[in-house]
Parts: sequence; structure tokens; C-alpha cells
Amino acid sequence: MSPSDVDAAPTALMPDGKVGAPVALAHRLADERAADIVDVLDRQPSVIAAAVLLHLPLDKAIAVLDQPGLERGAEIIAALPPERAAQLLAGMSADRVADVFRVTAEPVRSELLKHLDPRKKSSIEALLAYPEGTAGSIMTTEFVSVPFTWTIAQVLDHIRKVEHASETIYSIYVVEPVNRALVHVVPLRRLISGDPDANVLTAASTRRPLTVTALASRDDVARLISKYDMLAVPVVDEQDHVIGIVTVDDVIDVMVQRQTEQVQRFGGMEALGAPYLEIGFWQMIRKRGGWLCALFLSEMLTASAMQGFEGELEKAIVLTLFIPLIMSSGGNSGSQATSLLIRALALRQIQLRDWWRIAIRELPTGITLGALLGVIGIARIALWQKLGFYDYGEQWALVALTVGAALVGIVTFGSMTGSMLPFVLQRIGFDPATASAPFVATLVDVTGLVIYFSVAMLILRGTLL
Amino acid sequence: MSPSDVDAAPTALMPDGKVGAPVALAHRLADERAADIVDVLDRQPSVIAAAVLLHLPLDKAIAVLDQPGLERGAEIIAALPPERAAQLLAGMSADRVADVFRVTAEPVRSELLKHLDPRKKSSIEALLAYPEGTAGSIMTTEFVSVPFTWTIAQVLDHIRKVEHASETIYSIYVVEPVNRALVHVVPLRRLISGDPDANVLTAASTRRPLTVTALASRDDVARLISKYDMLAVPVVDEQDHVIGIVTVDDVIDVMVQRQTEQVQRFGGMEALGAPYLEIGFWQMIRKRGGWLCALFLSEMLTASAMQGFEGELEKAIVLTLFIPLIMSSGGNSGSQATSLLIRALALRQIQLRDWWRIAIRELPTGITLGALLGVIGIARIALWQKLGFYDYGEQWALVALTVGAALVGIVTFGSMTGSMLPFVLQRIGFDPATASAPFVATLVDVTGLVIYFSVAMLILRGTLL
Repeated sequence: MSPSDVDAAPTALMPDGKVGAPVALAHRLADERAADIVDVLDRQPSVIAAAVLLHLPLDKAIAVLDQPGLERGAEIIAALPPERAAQLLAGMSADRVADVFRVTAEPVRSELLKHLDPRKKSSIEALLAYPEGTAGSIMTTEFVSVPFTWTIAQVLDHIRKVEHASETIYSIYVVEPVNRALVHVVPLRRLISGDPDANVLTAASTRRPLTVTALASRDDVARLISKYDMLAVPVVDEQDHVIGIVTVDDVIDVMVQRQTEQVQRFGGMEALGAPYLEIGFWQMIRKRGGWLCALFLSEMLTASAMQGFEGELEKAIVLTLFIPLIMSSGGNSGSQATSLLIRALALRQIQLRDWWRIAIRELPTGITLGALLGVIGIARIALWQKLGFYDYGEQWALVALTVGAALVGIVTFGSMTGSMLPFVLQRIGFDPATASAPFVATLVDVTGLVIYFSVAMLILRGTLL
Repeated sequence: MSPSDVDAAPTALMPDGKVGAPVALAHRLADERAADIVDVLDRQPSVIAAAVLLHLPLDKAIAVLDQPGLERGAEIIAALPPERAAQLLAGMSADRVADVFRVTAEPVRSELLKHLDPRKKSSIEALLAYPEGTAGSIMTTEFVSVPFTWTIAQVLDHIRKVEHASETIYSIYVVEPVNRALVHVVPLRRLISGDPDANVLTAASTRRPLTVTALASRDDVARLISKYDMLAVPVVDEQDHVIGIVTVDDVIDVMVQRQTEQVQRFGGMEALGAPYLEIGFWQMIRKRGGWLCALFLSEMLTASAMQGFEGELEKAIVLTLFIPLIMSSGGNSGSQATSLLIRALALRQIQLRDWWRIAIRELPTGITLGALLGVIGIARIALWQKLGFYDYGEQWALVALTVGAALVGIVTFGSMTGSMLPFVLQRIGFDPATASAPFVATLVDVTGLVIYFSVAMLILRGTLL
């Protein structure tokens, strides 16, 4: 099956949203992969989706609910008969059950909690206690751990027994038998090729295992798994007890979600937190309107700046012609620099203390780029004047010089502001990706106007001004 | 070890870049993880890095070269004595050797090719033949495949033998014994818990395995692996022969790299393709200058638009005061809409054919957001006028009305353009993420001016104009 077949599959099953009864749909879906069933259910009302789940085999229904892609898991479970809901929740992995509870409001929440057996309930409540965005909030509690006294054969026997209940069996956590502290992580592949009668530790590496704490940020966990090519990372408490693991597929989900948030914030709005078509009209207005108003209010400073140069504007209307051109060039150069630095900081290619190395690089870069645009700007004015497309007045050469010189100043200022703002934001504890791009544009717009008119006063005093 | 310990490790090993002789450094690094050694070597000149590799144990040196994070692998290998280079290349995984060759220019390339044994050489040349960005270019050729006639015990025996030479053993590819076509993929975990004397197919699922072709895009591969939580996906040719596999850690590398490219392109520049501090001055000017000039040339249309309204400008200078404010609002609303749609398209939440559903959502959204800003704009002008901060003239109320009405028009136009352009770009075969944001800004700026002055002529004709 090629990727395009995969995309086509749910549509083929569901032409134009018209479906037969849920029972028939469940029958048709029973042999599909869980992720594909999710695609279909996400397009159905919760009640229909619940009816379909009711008629799927229990194993398959659990696999579907275990998919992080399923959008209204809580609603769907709440719409099921209580006994079936209890069966499904009992079978689901603890981290997914916690996910479902995290987005469930009362009274549905209490209703669902009733269905859980006491042990699962306390483990879910422990997961729910971790703040969103931490390793604890995305970890799963289903992993394999064995005492370090066991032989490889004993471990393999144990794995055979617990295989079905574990999210991954490819990393085995070897613990101290008495205090249960983590001693080593043994990859399954080393167990397979090891001597069955040897101690399990003969398959371990000699290094201390990499671990994270429950409060580590999910971004740090993602960076660790990606850097060391791990399939899972153990989450430990102060006594080095393994309290859960974060697997590579959780990390991929985190990466996709973070990328969406960053693109949306880079676009100057709050992260939506749900697919575009799932967001209600007024919710969308709130998510976009807040930032739009904030930027509008800051941009009002441009009107104030212009008012301050009213006298110059009246004397030299020709200057107004280039305001949009000059402002946008400053904004573009700032946006380039800020996007470069946001990524370099996020990937840890650059540390906070490196800011001066960036500053001494961006200064000549900005001047060169500004000079490039300045030359084009001067050439354009000269060309239009000489070819008779437009008459910039007697002093056209001085006007061209003003535009050229202002471009050098503004592009340099844009590059410097754009590259330094991410450092400032990170220093004061903000995520640089959150706010840099729109802030830079506003800063550069206002300052750009001041630079433009100051250059004009310098060059045109005694002639136009 | 916590993530912050990991980050600190290379620095501790290398305070201020001062190091002892390469031999001493190699000695200190020998027990570190390969990814951490890469961090240290990336800060050394290639010659030093080569000398360190020469003094590391062979296994460790190969593990270091196998890391995708190593930046100048080709240069470093070229700086080694020929026999050592040959040993290292022989031990490296085929996909990493191909990566190294991909960025190596002649004459170093021919020099390195000489070191390869004929079999590896032909497999590298096959990998190099796939265009960049395809599954073929990121796959590895080291995987485990077995005929479907074997028992589980036979397969496990085989895995024990080839474990060291395989990138992953967690998915076993079961093939037809004669024509070697892929029949099923068996996860190692099912083998472990299966009956050793049973046929290997008893551990397989009943569904056809998910596969990709060598020319599938790496983004599609990433989407597949992420959607179905796979550890690896097989790459097959027309006869269903497995010619390689793409593993989950390759996919994570692809995702990180793509995210960097997208942020940089969203920022209005060519993707750098290397860390910020690794890029030379003139290379940086080229990557940024090209787009900056292209945007500058398009923005010149704003000057032409302004020239067209010269008469109006002379009569009503007060209108110029709000040009930057109005232009930036259009740009911001366009940038919001485009960032939303870029992600929704990339995540396949929305298909090309859904464009009209977006259009009928963005129209009222744009009008509402525009009205919001319009009211704020009118309030600001009225306030300044009444409080005596600034005198917008006798007709200040009509000026305020012009600004308010223009904002509704421009924000609506920005939202519509910003949301539709990604569809247009995808339809004509471009990556929407590549070009949308800067294009939208330019389009909205020029049209915004036209809207503003048209509204002004409508409202102010007979009074100011």
C-alpha cells in the first residue's frame, strides 16, 4: 500500500459522509488499521462513532481509542453503555486514558472515573497531576522492568508473559531488587543475541542509562530521544525509580504538535490546539483577534511617528511614495534574521552567551543587504526619472540618495533587531518562537519611519526640506 | 543523566575550546556516547577531528561517523590515512556513507570511493542515484529478511547471527523464497512470544504490510511512520522486493530538518541547509539577498500605486499618516491565515478540494476581525481629536470613517488571500510552506493601498478630495 492509497482509504469507505447503519460500518472497518478507523470516526458525530466502537471487536476498539489522533475520545466513551466503557478504559494504555481525562470536563469526567478499577484510577490520577508539556504528562506506565539478579533466559520468559500489556518491550529496565532503583537499560536486541544462562547485566552497556525527570519539558525529551536515537527514555523520580517511559512515537506526536504551534505563533496568533475545521467561529476570532489587536495597537505608534514628521511630509510629498517599500524591506530583513535565530536557538546550535558572535555577524550582513537594496532603489528612481515614467522633481537625485541611504539603515536595523530579539525573549524566560516574528515587524516599522525621515532631514535640508 | 547534564557534557570536556593533544582527547572521549563525541568533534578543525578518530577504538570511531549530526564527515575521512579510512567506510552503514558522498566534491570523492570494496561501492552508488528528498535517499540497506518457509526458531537463530550488521532487528521482512517478493512484516516482539517450532508467518498480522516506493517523498514516509506508529517502513521496487528500510530515527532527523527549512522559508529566505555559524558571509548574503531583492522588486509596486494616487495625497496629507498602520494590519491578518492553512494542508487535515469550505469560513472571519480593528482605529482618531493630541482637520470624522472602512476591506482581503494562496501554490505544484508568507505580505500591501485610496475617494469625495 502506498501512502496515497492510505490517504484514499477512509474516503473510499465513506463517500460524501453517507454511511449505512453503525453496525454495517463497524463490520466494514473491523479489518482496517486502527489509525485508518480513527480517520473515519473523526468525521462522524460522537454518537455514531460510539455506536461503531460498540460493534467492533473489543481488541480493535481499544486499539482505536489508544490512537492519539482520535479527536473526541472522551465524548465517545461517555456515549457508550457504562459496562462497555469500563471494559475499554481498562484495556487502554494509561497515558491515553490520562489524555482523555485531561480534555474532559465535569460531569462526564466523574462519570468516566467511576468505571475505572482502583489501581488504574490511582495511576491515572498520578499522570494527571503532571503539568501539561512535561515528560510526566506524555509518559506511559506500561513498561518491562526486571531485577538485576535474573538471567537472560528468565528475562525473556518474563517478556513473553507481559508482552501484550506493555507499550514497548524493546528496552528492558533492570532495577536493584530491594530498593527498585534503575541500574541499567538493556535493549531487547542484545538479549536475543546473548547467552541465555548469563546474567541480564552482561547484555547491558557499561554507561549509566540516560533518564529524565517527570518535570523535564517534552521538548527536552524529544531532543534527547532524537540525539541518541533511542526508542524510549525512562522517567525517574528522586530515588531513581522508573515511574514511566516516553516512547519514540509519543515524541513524534509532540514534534508534529509543536511544529504546528510554532508555525501558528510565527504567523502572529495563538496556537489553535485543534484542527482548523474543528474550531468554532468565535473561538477562531478570539485566537486571532487578540494578537491582531495587540499588533494593531503597537503599530499605532507608526501613526504617531508620522504625525511627528507632518511638516516634512507637507513639504516633500514625494517622500511618502516610498514609505511602504522601505517599511516592508525592514520587516523582511528582520523576519529573515529572526527565523534564523529562532531555529538555531531551538536546535541548541547557539547558546544565549553566543549573542555577541551573532551581533558581529549580523551587522556587516545587514549593511551589505541594505546596500544591495539601496542600489536597486536608487537605480529604479533614476530609471523612472530618465525614462519619463514619473517626475520625482528637480531634486530627484537627492530623493534617490535619501531612499538608498535609508534602506541601508533600515535593513541593518531590521537584521540586528531580528537577530537579537530571540535572545532577549529567551533571556527573560519566553519561548523565542512564540512572539519574535510579529514583534520584530512592529519594532522595525516604527523605527524604520524614524530612520527614513531622519536621513531625509540630513540629506534634503536646504533643498526640499 | 538529565538533559541539562547531557548538554553540559561536551563543554565540560572542552573548556573554551582548549584541548590537549588529539591522543589525550581520544582517550578522554573513548567512553562517551557517540552523539556526545560528535558535539566535541564538530567544534574542532577537521584535521584534529580526524586525529581523534584515528585514536578511538574502531567500533567507536564507526559509531561516531554513523551519526547524522557529524557535520564534516567527508572532510574528516579524507584527512585520515587511506587504510584507516577504508576500514571506517567498510564498517559504516550504507545510508550514512551515501550521505557523506552526497556532500563530497571531487577530487575527495574519487579518493574515498577507491577505499570501498566493490559490493559496498555498488550499493552506495545505487543509494546516490535516488534524488534528494525521496525515501530512497534516506533508506538503509541493512535489514533482516527471511524466507516464509522458516520456523520462528530459525528466524531467531538468524537474527542472533546478523544482529550486529543490521540497523534494526525489530521488524523482520518475510519474503517469498523464490522471487524474494515481500510477503509480510513480523515484529520481533511477536516472535519472542511465539511458539519456536511454528512457522514464522504465524507471528504475522493478516494485513498486507505498509510499504513505500523508493521515489516516495520523505514527507510522505514521515507521515506514514508517524500515523501508524511504525519503527521502520520497507521500501520496495515494482516486483515488491525490499530494497531498503527507512527507520524511525531517520524520520525524526527528516522532521527536524524540514522544520528548520520551513521556519526559514516562512521567514522569507532560502533554507540555509547548515547551522547558522557554519555559513560563510557571502553564502549568507546569497541565501538572504535573493529573496530580499525579489520581495523588494515586487514591493516596488507599492510606489507605483502611491504614484497613481498622487493627486489625492497632495489634497489630503492626513491620509498618509495611516498608511503604515493599515498596511501592517492587512499583512498580519494574511500571515495568520496563511500559517493556519499551511499547517492544515501539511497535516492533511484539509484537502485541495476543501478550498471553498475555507473560503466561506475566512470571509466572515476576516470581516469580523476587520470590524474589530476598524472600531479601535476610529476610536483612536476620535480620542486624539477630542483630547487635542492631534488635529486631523475639520473632516476628522470622515477621515476616521475612511480608516475604519478601509480596515474592514483590507483585513478581509488579507484573510482571503492568506488562506487561498496555499491552495493555489499546492495546486500548481509548489510546497505551500515555501513561499506563502512573504508572497502574501507583498500581495496584501499593494492591494491594501488600492483599497485604502478607493475607500477614501468614495467617502471623502466632495470634502477633502
